[in-house]
Amino acid sequence: MSFTVLCQDGGSRARGGELGTRHGTVATPVFLPVASKGTVKTLSSADVTELGFGMLLANTYHLYLQPGLAVIEKAGGLHRFMAWDGAILTDSGGYQVFSLASLRKVDEEGVTFRSHIDGSEHRLTPELAVAFQETLGSDIAMVLDECPPFDGRRDAIEAACERTLRWAERCLKAKKRADQDLFAIVQGAGFADLRRHSAEQLAALDFPGYAIGGLSLGEPKAATLAAIEATVPFLPAGRPRYLMGVGSPEDLVEGVARGIDIFDCALPTRVARNGSLFTATGRVNIRNAGFGQDMRPVEPGCDCPTCRSYSAAYLHHLFDARELLAYRLATVHNLFFVNRLMREMRQAIVAGDFAAFRKEFLGRYRTTDEPVRLAQKRKWLRKAASGPEDT
Amino acid sequence: MSFTVLCQDGGSRARGGELGTRHGTVATPVFLPVASKGTVKTLSSADVTELGFGMLLANTYHLYLQPGLAVIEKAGGLHRFMAWDGAILTDSGGYQVFSLASLRKVDEEGVTFRSHIDGSEHRLTPELAVAFQETLGSDIAMVLDECPPFDGRRDAIEAACERTLRWAERCLKAKKRADQDLFAIVQGAGFADLRRHSAEQLAALDFPGYAIGGLSLGEPKAATLAAIEATVPFLPAGRPRYLMGVGSPEDLVEGVARGIDIFDCALPTRVARNGSLFTATGRVNIRNAGFGQDMRPVEPGCDCPTCRSYSAAYLHHLFDARELLAYRLATVHNLFFVNRLMREMRQAIVAGDFAAFRKEFLGRYRTTDEPVRLAQKRKWLRKAASGPEDT
Repeated sequence: MSFTVLCQDGGSRARGGELGTRHGTVATPVFLPVASKGTVKTLSSADVTELGFGMLLANTYHLYLQPGLAVIEKAGGLHRFMAWDGAILTDSGGYQVFSLASLRKVDEEGVTFRSHIDGSEHRLTPELAVAFQETLGSDIAMVLDECPPFDGRRDAIEAACERTLRWAERCLKAKKRADQDLFAIVQGAGFADLRRHSAEQLAALDFPGYAIGGLSLGEPKAATLAAIEATVPFLPAGRPRYLMGVGSPEDLVEGVARGIDIFDCALPTRVARNGSLFTATGRVNIRNAGFGQDMRPVEPGCDCPTCRSYSAAYLHHLFDARELLAYRLATVHNLFFVNRLMREMRQAIVAGDFAAFRKEFLGRYRTTDEPVRLAQKRKWLRKAASGPEDT
Repeated sequence: MSFTVLCQDGGSRARGGELGTRHGTVATPVFLPVASKGTVKTLSSADVTELGFGMLLANTYHLYLQPGLAVIEKAGGLHRFMAWDGAILTDSGGYQVFSLASLRKVDEEGVTFRSHIDGSEHRLTPELAVAFQETLGSDIAMVLDECPPFDGRRDAIEAACERTLRWAERCLKAKKRADQDLFAIVQGAGFADLRRHSAEQLAALDFPGYAIGGLSLGEPKAATLAAIEATVPFLPAGRPRYLMGVGSPEDLVEGVARGIDIFDCALPTRVARNGSLFTATGRVNIRNAGFGQDMRPVEPGCDCPTCRSYSAAYLHHLFDARELLAYRLATVHNLFFVNRLMREMRQAIVAGDFAAFRKEFLGRYRTTDEPVRLAQKRKWLRKAASGPEDT
């Protein structure tokens, strides 16, 4: 893997770059759609390519449980199993073990958990997390980290940071594949000094890339942004920075402004399946009665495959009739929207217009009220913990 | 509309032809995928085009109830509403009124029924059936017919035939659009003399095309084929013959051999969503455990988009995980299979090889046991009547 920063915004930490992988080069900042179980929900791999994505995220936890790693190994790896020629980043499974699995027991060696599907008992250690991801054959793998709740006590957060560091060292030692890169994960919740310390200690281990973990867990948006700001300055400038699990349009803009290169999030696809579609002025819900008679595209002027062919009224009808095509057309629109947003940000950084772009976008884009957003997020986290859809 | 018989098989009634519509020319014999509510379930219109189809069927009853004809009229007709540039054949709504709606009251004027969705009361007459389909703007519309149960008493079947004739005359009179063609429907259940009489009387009215109705209602396969044989010889040779609601691979071959030009059926798409996939040797169910480790395509050698990219193991995994992509990939395979079968039959007719093709296909293709098939069909008809999915 190679990473090159090609240009740096003058008025913010935003930067444009190129991430080279054995499955192609990806322009950054970049958003990765989430293919939890080997498919971006509702989409074929060809669809994802046609939408312009060159890299996606897959969840080791989900694939380990279903269909199981032996099947994917027999297929010749995840790229071949899911017919995806682009790059793949896999997570370690840790986040899902901490958020979805039940009867979780963490010790210094690793974590024992029960499958949320059938209750069977499994073990995950730093060494196994690396081995699992090497079997999947992703281009970028993540270390196993301990991901504590954002509102945990300081001593618990500090202990999680220390353990995450020790586990990161063990992951590095366990690594065998030369054609896969391993990224570290910074923890520290909302404690700026712990974030800095975690970043500096991991930076000393010289990982090819660094993620910011432990965010997007139901904390206020201001706290998310503060944690990013407390971390980024202490990561090596020449290495890619990956903000895990963040991906609403406004968060992507704020993350890029703070120096993030890579994002992944299931939000654009999850809300799409509920009929919530991104537009330049904010989210709209296509199920609202008003759309039933609206013969314009859901976002007039949008060049996505959905808006190019179909009216808001048609989409409204498909949702109303629970036609399976509804979920795909909505997913296509939201992913196209996010990918276009990333491209526009890259172009603005290159052109030296990022500050103006950011101001204009955030001025236009009506975000969900903070109390409503937090209530939705916490509701979803609870629902995910009791029977997940995607994460 | 124009219809030309281009070649006639020497050893059977099979024939190859061309059906010209205002939305393109379609080679016959042809199979129409079913877009009940304005989408072939799981597929976009672009997908249907890419699979090679130039014509599809939509259900007036479903579209009348949801989203309602006013919405489709506002969109500029069904072609524009569903972004489909090919030809459309609409049914009259009669079949669904007779099979799905509740509290049905038939009189000479028409039929009063309650919506299966919300219980609201509606009226369908021959004149309204024509007006509804003219609003939809289909290329080919169907007359309103009375569709009695296959096992009805002779006097009831005879009365239904007579009423179907009177309603066909009223439909002809009610017709206003010059750019839409109206097909008649032959009834008569399993009574050969009633089929002949119905065919001859309707033929005298000089319709541009003729359908065989009242079949595929749970009767034995031999009875279906006998009813076709009792009808076809009495239909005008120069007009297209349409067998409604028939579409298993073996039935398509037997129908073509008996002189049918047009078929429609939801079976290939419906069984696909249950994991049942067509192969040269018969149906297989991808959910069977054996496929979980099978890295070959579900039908080795198949050139469909699903088999070109994905293994049986991947499809098995998607069904196991209830991923929405599963239903689309299976639908794509089955429709590709059926479309290829129709093309191969056309080529065989042209080449003078149809008898050999038919013998070889039916020798290879293991059909579902008749008792099992009838039990499945009747179960599905009951399910459809209590809360339909597609028809």
